[in-house]
Amino acid sequence: MQDQERVAARRPVTRQDVARYAGVSTAVVSYVVNSGPRAVAPATRAKVLDAIRLLDYRPNAAARALKLGSTQLLGLVVPDSTNPYFAELSHAIEEAADAKGLAVLQTNSAGAALQERNLLQKLISRQIDGLLLASVGAVPDLSRVAAANIPVVLLDRDEGASGLVAVGTDYRAGSRAGVRHLIEHGHTDIGLVVGRDTGGTTAAREAGWLEALAEAGLAEGPIAHVGFSREGGYEAGRRLLNRERPPTAIFASSDMQAIGVLRAIHETEWAVPDDIAVISFDGSVESEFSWPPLTTIRQPVHDMARAAVDAVTQDRAGSREEYLSFPTELVIRASCGRHPIKR
Amino acid sequence: MQDQERVAARRPVTRQDVARYAGVSTAVVSYVVNSGPRAVAPATRAKVLDAIRLLDYRPNAAARALKLGSTQLLGLVVPDSTNPYFAELSHAIEEAADAKGLAVLQTNSAGAALQERNLLQKLISRQIDGLLLASVGAVPDLSRVAAANIPVVLLDRDEGASGLVAVGTDYRAGSRAGVRHLIEHGHTDIGLVVGRDTGGTTAAREAGWLEALAEAGLAEGPIAHVGFSREGGYEAGRRLLNRERPPTAIFASSDMQAIGVLRAIHETEWAVPDDIAVISFDGSVESEFSWPPLTTIRQPVHDMARAAVDAVTQDRAGSREEYLSFPTELVIRASCGRHPIKR
Repeated sequence: MQDQERVAARRPVTRQDVARYAGVSTAVVSYVVNSGPRAVAPATRAKVLDAIRLLDYRPNAAARALKLGSTQLLGLVVPDSTNPYFAELSHAIEEAADAKGLAVLQTNSAGAALQERNLLQKLISRQIDGLLLASVGAVPDLSRVAAANIPVVLLDRDEGASGLVAVGTDYRAGSRAGVRHLIEHGHTDIGLVVGRDTGGTTAAREAGWLEALAEAGLAEGPIAHVGFSREGGYEAGRRLLNRERPPTAIFASSDMQAIGVLRAIHETEWAVPDDIAVISFDGSVESEFSWPPLTTIRQPVHDMARAAVDAVTQDRAGSREEYLSFPTELVIRASCGRHPIKR
Repeated sequence: MQDQERVAARRPVTRQDVARYAGVSTAVVSYVVNSGPRAVAPATRAKVLDAIRLLDYRPNAAARALKLGSTQLLGLVVPDSTNPYFAELSHAIEEAADAKGLAVLQTNSAGAALQERNLLQKLISRQIDGLLLASVGAVPDLSRVAAANIPVVLLDRDEGASGLVAVGTDYRAGSRAGVRHLIEHGHTDIGLVVGRDTGGTTAAREAGWLEALAEAGLAEGPIAHVGFSREGGYEAGRRLLNRERPPTAIFASSDMQAIGVLRAIHETEWAVPDDIAVISFDGSVESEFSWPPLTTIRQPVHDMARAAVDAVTQDRAGSREEYLSFPTELVIRASCGRHPIKR
């Protein structure tokens, strides 16, 4: 701590100091630091590098940011960056931002509203140029972000939000199409594994499942509400399999949950897809390399990432209200089988 | 573009402008923007928020960074943030940095040296306070980082590096322990699935495999050099299984490769672990939810993340040279079986 205070209190070392010490012009110092635009003779370069090290000089981006009035930084908050869906979405956002010369501060709320509020406050104090938020709540508290006049785009939304741009997938139509696929395979008893929260995209996935069953005149299958995690899916799978008559098909509302369901089924004598079919939502790469590979309702992460970055860089906070919804794609693999079920 | 230029050319709106427009003191504007330290009456707050919106005011972090001489930002470069091992490491680094009031700019080199160089240049130009680099090459080009006087810590290293702090696992001892575990189960024909690059940690994993075989007086098993990916592991698995006599056990040098190997085995008549045992390296959560759950050599990501963040914040570039190696842990699950093999 003492060392830090001493450093902070010291007069900053400038490019002029380095130039004086090395006996060169400030322009030459700049060429060495920025590797151009003009070449510097090796011996001169070595002298400048020595001076930089000895004086502990650090060229200052803050000065440039002050001049630009912009940090060229976006803030990103997701519930869990180790969830493969969010890992892929974050990666796509990083690429889309990089194409515009922006870098991304990625943060994790761990699915907790309090942590999310703290992260927002920290990102505000860093004066990000825009915020991309996959919120844990249906109605995030954005008053502080608004006060700081930072543009916001909400991610992972099933509907628009007042005064904001929101991006999402058609969770309801996608889920309905997935459950229809199971019905076409002859299933009449289709269980649901879904998140614990009862709003937003969770409710939309559940609604899609219900609609497909209702359309086909089928009774509601059993539901397990669990966490959006592999562990949650495993717990849900065990519960559904322990029923007197387990469902012949399960719709898991995320890839991670489906991975957990598969593990629960593998631990029994049942086989996928011959005894129980499984379909998932997300379409992350993990769904392709599970066993069997999962038939899944894929979210268009790259389209959503580009749209979100475009929107957050084009608009000032509060200047546009729009809901951008992208269609899902049904990716058919092995977990639902090819023929009507045997049971 | 035109709009952007107009904004950039405009005189920045200051806190004074907002205060004047709202008819309050600059202190009150500050309380609203920072949500404290003192409370502001709702009506006054509303006036200030209106002024902020109308004038398009954005409080400036760059000014503060200039005063501090620090951006409080770390740069992180990994080959692939959607690899669950790097997703977990990045998450752990984010947490360790946050505990010190630092945010992390996460970037992906896509395993390409050219992309890595470009990312380093971009991070330098943002004047990060420190760089954490999991390089694609054994000897990354850090001359520009050194010229900018930015402290560097190398991640995922199997040995120290001149003038730098490097962090890693004991890949060789960990791999040796894993292969010994297979030998204790009675395996004498143990194949290796490993990365394509022939240096660094890849070579260390291969060396550990070889050493365990040599110790036990066993012949070298077949090797497949493939990409560090699920697809690479799948390709390797198919190659090893298509041999006239496939090995009875496979050591995959990463979880992702092991996931691909499992898929290749599942597509045959062979069963894991009864016909073929599989062990992996990394210990990410994906290894726990594969089928069967993978016995794995776990890397201590949290210890490594904390050590890396501590080192990069404590040291100036070039002031310390140290290799920090953390032991692995053998996590025994189902993929190696419990008894001597049947074949």
